[in-house]
Amino acid sequence: MSEATAVSGARILAHVEALARCSEQSDGLTRVFLSEEHRAANELALRWMREAGMDARVDAMGNVVGRYEATRPGMPCLMLGSHLDTVRDAGKYDGMLGVVTAIECVHALHARGQRLPFALEVLGFGDEEGVRFGATLIGSRAVAGTFRREVLDAVDRDGISLREALRRFDLEPARIGEATKRREDVLAYAELHIEQGPVLEAEGLPVGVVTAISGANRYAVEIDGVAGHAGTVPMPLRQDAMAAAAECVLAVERRACAEPELVGTVGKLECLPGAVNVVPGRVKFTIDVRSPDDGARLAAAADLVREIQAICDRRGVQGRIAKTHEGKTAPCAGWLQAQIGEAIAAEGLPVRRLPSGAGHDGMAMIDLADIGMLFVRCEKGISHNPAEAITLADVETGARVFLRFIERFDPARKT
Amino acid sequence: MSEATAVSGARILAHVEALARCSEQSDGLTRVFLSEEHRAANELALRWMREAGMDARVDAMGNVVGRYEATRPGMPCLMLGSHLDTVRDAGKYDGMLGVVTAIECVHALHARGQRLPFALEVLGFGDEEGVRFGATLIGSRAVAGTFRREVLDAVDRDGISLREALRRFDLEPARIGEATKRREDVLAYAELHIEQGPVLEAEGLPVGVVTAISGANRYAVEIDGVAGHAGTVPMPLRQDAMAAAAECVLAVERRACAEPELVGTVGKLECLPGAVNVVPGRVKFTIDVRSPDDGARLAAAADLVREIQAICDRRGVQGRIAKTHEGKTAPCAGWLQAQIGEAIAAEGLPVRRLPSGAGHDGMAMIDLADIGMLFVRCEKGISHNPAEAITLADVETGARVFLRFIERFDPARKT
Repeated sequence: MSEATAVSGARILAHVEALARCSEQSDGLTRVFLSEEHRAANELALRWMREAGMDARVDAMGNVVGRYEATRPGMPCLMLGSHLDTVRDAGKYDGMLGVVTAIECVHALHARGQRLPFALEVLGFGDEEGVRFGATLIGSRAVAGTFRREVLDAVDRDGISLREALRRFDLEPARIGEATKRREDVLAYAELHIEQGPVLEAEGLPVGVVTAISGANRYAVEIDGVAGHAGTVPMPLRQDAMAAAAECVLAVERRACAEPELVGTVGKLECLPGAVNVVPGRVKFTIDVRSPDDGARLAAAADLVREIQAICDRRGVQGRIAKTHEGKTAPCAGWLQAQIGEAIAAEGLPVRRLPSGAGHDGMAMIDLADIGMLFVRCEKGISHNPAEAITLADVETGARVFLRFIERFDPARKT
Repeated sequence: MSEATAVSGARILAHVEALARCSEQSDGLTRVFLSEEHRAANELALRWMREAGMDARVDAMGNVVGRYEATRPGMPCLMLGSHLDTVRDAGKYDGMLGVVTAIECVHALHARGQRLPFALEVLGFGDEEGVRFGATLIGSRAVAGTFRREVLDAVDRDGISLREALRRFDLEPARIGEATKRREDVLAYAELHIEQGPVLEAEGLPVGVVTAISGANRYAVEIDGVAGHAGTVPMPLRQDAMAAAAECVLAVERRACAEPELVGTVGKLECLPGAVNVVPGRVKFTIDVRSPDDGARLAAAADLVREIQAICDRRGVQGRIAKTHEGKTAPCAGWLQAQIGEAIAAEGLPVRRLPSGAGHDGMAMIDLADIGMLFVRCEKGISHNPAEAITLADVETGARVFLRFIERFDPARKT
């Protein structure tokens, strides 16, 4: 296919590498919102957007926005994008691959002088990870119109507020409303992203269609037993907080295994006082439960709260369970899943549908427009880590599928 | 009983309080081997020993030794004692109660002008806890003749060796052999100590006869799974080190519960990397297994090593198990248990036999002589903690029983 050969995996990777050099550390990649490195990354993206035939600018929240007009100007747009910020000591692809691939797709259309019946807008969001100010999705919330102004008072670790950081970035906090798009101007939002999980690799597939960005519940659990001497307290007289917590860890695992797309994790656990010869008196741990099905997630969370309480009651220890987060699922629109699936099938590949257990800008963009996502396989599912890796072949496959989706995008099929 | 009224619980507690003021910290109790506080505690003990009619001196390892002659001088002795050093931020009774009570018992005999057919020697060991030089039982090993001279090279946290510390304490390292007693001069070693466990309190008993100082095996376990994103790695693709460790914790508990005097503890557990949204890739934990029955302990330890390996194999994670300690049981001699039991029964109290899960000077003294121990109830079994507590009534009961045991001690009944 002539249009398929027009995207260059090599150029995508070169651009990813160039962005990776915009880092606050020389021996790895960290780039936070409204930093000088962010400014440098925006400059690169603006240049590539203009080379791809787009009008490009930085919006009122520091996002880069490139617009490629339709056959006639002023038409509603298909929005494409991802984020340009990173976690600390990050990989190179999380976020950036989506921005760079979207630009590359427009570049391919521009190279052929091809215009579509709708405009394209490519967004490079300034904040998705939330590293600097502790609030995630600042960039996409500004575009979707759901940014809460109290976040302007959030401060980074140097005590600089978001309000002040915007000013230092030559942006005016009073004008951030100008970053918000009108719903009637947006046909849909589509994002390409690395999977950040092992499913596609395990099944030997380069790409997949995302069904939903899973909702999540998080809990902080504290169990208070009674500390004691490991030699002198007989087993029947113990109130061992660690043994109780171990039962809870296995209860989380067992409940999550009971349904196919549910996941449950005890990721953090502290055992106190923490000495080889002391029966643990206190254990603190976290629970993270996610599912693309809100009902399944809420039922599992409720079951676990009950089960942990029952374990603690039976063992004569005190359990305190505090919900620290609850976020609902952001479903990907069926009509966008269908069109992304068709683009994959047209490449002769099986269409694998899978949920995204990780959060993405679509969680904010869904308040503006229907969302769709294309996942690209990454090595061992590793992400948020310098070891994040992807093959050139998969970069090219992802870009070909994404371009095909864009070219054949049909907003009339929205149901 | 006239001899029973001759011991003063109030004086014992006053002496315990006086010793507690020999501390390196003003807001709590810490007294380590060969410190200035140790010197001050020895001075107090020497004075009280002399007031109780004993010849008293500091031996070549810094232990205080008081001798109360028999009806004729130079007879073999019944040794009584415990330790004068403490852990950091210690309780007041662990060790000290045994030394002070033994002195009080001699004081009672002396007040009546009573001599026994055997000599009494009261020892206040300078090091049992091992806080300063990382080697435990230094005082009692010197007396038993099992002190290893390479320990002289051990250094404290300021880099001062034991050899140098002895010199600063006005002792000559070349002469530590002089602290060793000859076997033929010692009839038995008997120690009164707080239980440091909750058994006597749970059963409403002030005292108990120790059957053995339990042997112990300790292990350091490391489990390597694969870290992953808590949202993106489906349950069947996980190699969760924390879930595997949780199974091991419960296996330790279950195995220990299978036999009455076996205890098993996972006291320390680290979960890495330790983030709410990351599947744990590595967990490190410790296992401590104790029993007064060496066969039961070794069988349980072997079972646990096998079971942990099986858990890891089944879950596809790597388990590494290293034995960090193995110490055999020090049984209390049957004839001493019998005589201590008779002294308890003579007070009209039930004779409860129980093992000591904590270590004591008897573990070293057993190489010199048969050992016996009397436990006294302490509040909630708390020890190695400023909250360590004991009632005046229990102090007096313990002292009465110990004096009765001493008076009626009959080495001819040794079997």
